[in-house]
Amino acid sequence: MSLTNASPLEAAQAAKSASHVLATLSAESRNDALTAIHAALTAARDDILAANARDLELARQAAADGKLSQSLVARLDLGKKGKWEDMLKGILDVRDLEDPVGRVTLRTRLDDGLELERVTCPIGVLLIIFEARPEVIANIAALAVKSGNAAILKGGKESTESFVAISRVISAALERTQVPNAAIQLVTTRDVIPELLALDRHIDLVIPRGSNDLVRYIKTNTRIPVLGHADGLCSIYLEASVDPALAVDVIVDSKTNYPAACNSLETLLVQESALATHLPRVAAAVAAKGVELRCDEASKAALEQHQPPIPNLVLTSATERDFTTEFLSLTLAVKTVPSLAEAIAHINAHGSHHTDAILTASKEAAEAFMSGVDSAGVYWNASTRFADGTRYGFGTEVGISTNKIHSRGPVGLEGLMIYKYKLRGQGQVSAVYGEGEGRKRFLHERLPLD
Amino acid sequence: MSLTNASPLEAAQAAKSASHVLATLSAESRNDALTAIHAALTAARDDILAANARDLELARQAAADGKLSQSLVARLDLGKKGKWEDMLKGILDVRDLEDPVGRVTLRTRLDDGLELERVTCPIGVLLIIFEARPEVIANIAALAVKSGNAAILKGGKESTESFVAISRVISAALERTQVPNAAIQLVTTRDVIPELLALDRHIDLVIPRGSNDLVRYIKTNTRIPVLGHADGLCSIYLEASVDPALAVDVIVDSKTNYPAACNSLETLLVQESALATHLPRVAAAVAAKGVELRCDEASKAALEQHQPPIPNLVLTSATERDFTTEFLSLTLAVKTVPSLAEAIAHINAHGSHHTDAILTASKEAAEAFMSGVDSAGVYWNASTRFADGTRYGFGTEVGISTNKIHSRGPVGLEGLMIYKYKLRGQGQVSAVYGEGEGRKRFLHERLPLD
Repeated sequence: MSLTNASPLEAAQAAKSASHVLATLSAESRNDALTAIHAALTAARDDILAANARDLELARQAAADGKLSQSLVARLDLGKKGKWEDMLKGILDVRDLEDPVGRVTLRTRLDDGLELERVTCPIGVLLIIFEARPEVIANIAALAVKSGNAAILKGGKESTESFVAISRVISAALERTQVPNAAIQLVTTRDVIPELLALDRHIDLVIPRGSNDLVRYIKTNTRIPVLGHADGLCSIYLEASVDPALAVDVIVDSKTNYPAACNSLETLLVQESALATHLPRVAAAVAAKGVELRCDEASKAALEQHQPPIPNLVLTSATERDFTTEFLSLTLAVKTVPSLAEAIAHINAHGSHHTDAILTASKEAAEAFMSGVDSAGVYWNASTRFADGTRYGFGTEVGISTNKIHSRGPVGLEGLMIYKYKLRGQGQVSAVYGEGEGRKRFLHERLPLD
Repeated sequence: MSLTNASPLEAAQAAKSASHVLATLSAESRNDALTAIHAALTAARDDILAANARDLELARQAAADGKLSQSLVARLDLGKKGKWEDMLKGILDVRDLEDPVGRVTLRTRLDDGLELERVTCPIGVLLIIFEARPEVIANIAALAVKSGNAAILKGGKESTESFVAISRVISAALERTQVPNAAIQLVTTRDVIPELLALDRHIDLVIPRGSNDLVRYIKTNTRIPVLGHADGLCSIYLEASVDPALAVDVIVDSKTNYPAACNSLETLLVQESALATHLPRVAAAVAAKGVELRCDEASKAALEQHQPPIPNLVLTSATERDFTTEFLSLTLAVKTVPSLAEAIAHINAHGSHHTDAILTASKEAAEAFMSGVDSAGVYWNASTRFADGTRYGFGTEVGISTNKIHSRGPVGLEGLMIYKYKLRGQGQVSAVYGEGEGRKRFLHERLPLD
């Protein structure tokens, strides 16, 4: 890993060459590099947290001046309870995952002595662009090394001190391993993103981690495939059949556990028949946590007319726009729907295909919801906040994808792999095969994978 | 299937809604639709071939006037030996493939009563843009129906008559099935491609089938992911250890079987020690088929100095540009390399990551080549022409992808699928899980897939 002042083109060319070496290293060599990174970061804890404190101080000043959001400051804080430990644990979790490289996923005998094999391999060169969250550097470096991909990292300026501190440590650690130096390139020069995005011959995948604006900017300005989500507009459909206490727990967690997260709840759809039986209790519970409600007419009436009055209720009339807004704050849009079919249709039309849940006692309704909602995550009686690579057991994640191809939902190691077809023959030619008279037929015999 | 004069937006919205229905149809319903399409096309053979003959006549005139290439005329001809039969067989082959929808590919117990499942599902709405090749309509309709995807088809004007004839037949056949009418939309109005490419909220994947220029234009002008290859610059590395007769067979087939195809040979890399032993025989064989050689100095000298002189040899000096050119004709670039490592490096730097082969008697050299060459297909002692979905046993193909994500190489049914995560709980919330004291740990227990 090198802190480089190389040009974007030089960095990308070097990363491409390194990727060809990294792709042929053994699992043991890649795992050893992760062990080395973990040990070095553990030893350097105090230095890194001190650097992070300097970033934080500047960020807090900027936030006080109104130049930076509080949620960005929160994401920047590596000293926040459990964050450092999670970062380090993530590296070992990734190391201890099954090796994703070289797995045979298809074997077919095309003809005698002509065997086709599909084998997993790294994608090549990843470009990771992120804003704050300094721990992402360690996560991404771990995932890249484990998966045999080279990576170019471009961090936001707010985390520069943390970023440089972590990368120096990783760089020194990798020097003593077989991972080529240029396999992980840190780009610290400014304003290079447009140049990097033009390098579609050298960079195979862009993974932006940051604001919606950043993701949209990137998607509009590159021919390189982009893996990421522009929005996390998650909905819950509350059916009258569900235990109201369960509904309160799940909705409070989905909305208030971490409102700035992409997997937090933004729209609550309420079955008409649950307006009187369930909604008041749910509204009281989220109101107690400071959530402001934007309600359609029916849900507004149900809450305002409830006796006794619901304490702390902050309630306004929803506009159509509220149902396509990712608030990322303690605001919740509430809409009444007559049926499951309308709930599914609303989510498919208004949601962002990230994670949506149904709360119901009916298995049939739950299965119809999970089959009909076109989202990366479709949940039955569980918080939308579970949409996360670590929680899914992927070790760590590079992000959550709302793409419809390649990798969807939390992206772990598998999302960084592709495959190649190996064909081993004995001089076979295509001309002799076909449907006509006197042509050979292919056998297409499926073979066992090991 | 409908022949529509709807606007691109209307077509895409209708396709999106239809995709939500199509995605929930049973395998039986989708297979029944394919049976109906096959029967209807079989019955309408004469009408369709007559329509195709009208397209062909216009195309031949245009080719005679120099306005259309001969290779396009060849691709247009549905009456070419075996083409019609292949088209019909492809529909049944696709029908008889394993159902790709609803396959469980991962099951994890996150905690007691909280189970995660990853299930395959259709991508959604595909936009297929193709130039000639009228049989593509039937291929794509079959693959879309089988995979549960809606598709918008936009064909080239040269195949309009064939295209309309085939689509009318398919449309009538689908009327009697459960596949919604708007699931397959034919757009016949002109100049709508820019509008379609802007509809990234409704269209999930673009699959261009046509010239490199078409693919490049599309990649530059849309935020929708594009599946396709811009180039097919395939190489063969000829090692001195291989049986010269095997080399002749494979190189002749790779270069001359169908020079306009993307999986045809464009660059021959010759091990230095094979210049005298193998190259003359190979050159004589391809020269006999009308192939013109563009040689580097060493290979040129070896061929020109060969005694007795090689008959029919047409040979010029190669320029650097010849090694990055997809000739798509009877022209072959020849370059001498000292070693396997140089061959791999040349291919990774100059090739298009489509399909590359090594001809060698050494298993070690073959495995090193297949591991080190970063291409969708890496072959040992077999013709590059095997890179094809039908030949791989995929039933039929939507194209060959040189993308580094999602789907690589010949793309069959699996390339049209994505997955969703279903999480079934009992009211679990995220707040209670974590690494700190008093927090619950996830079980992350891998469960059997059935």
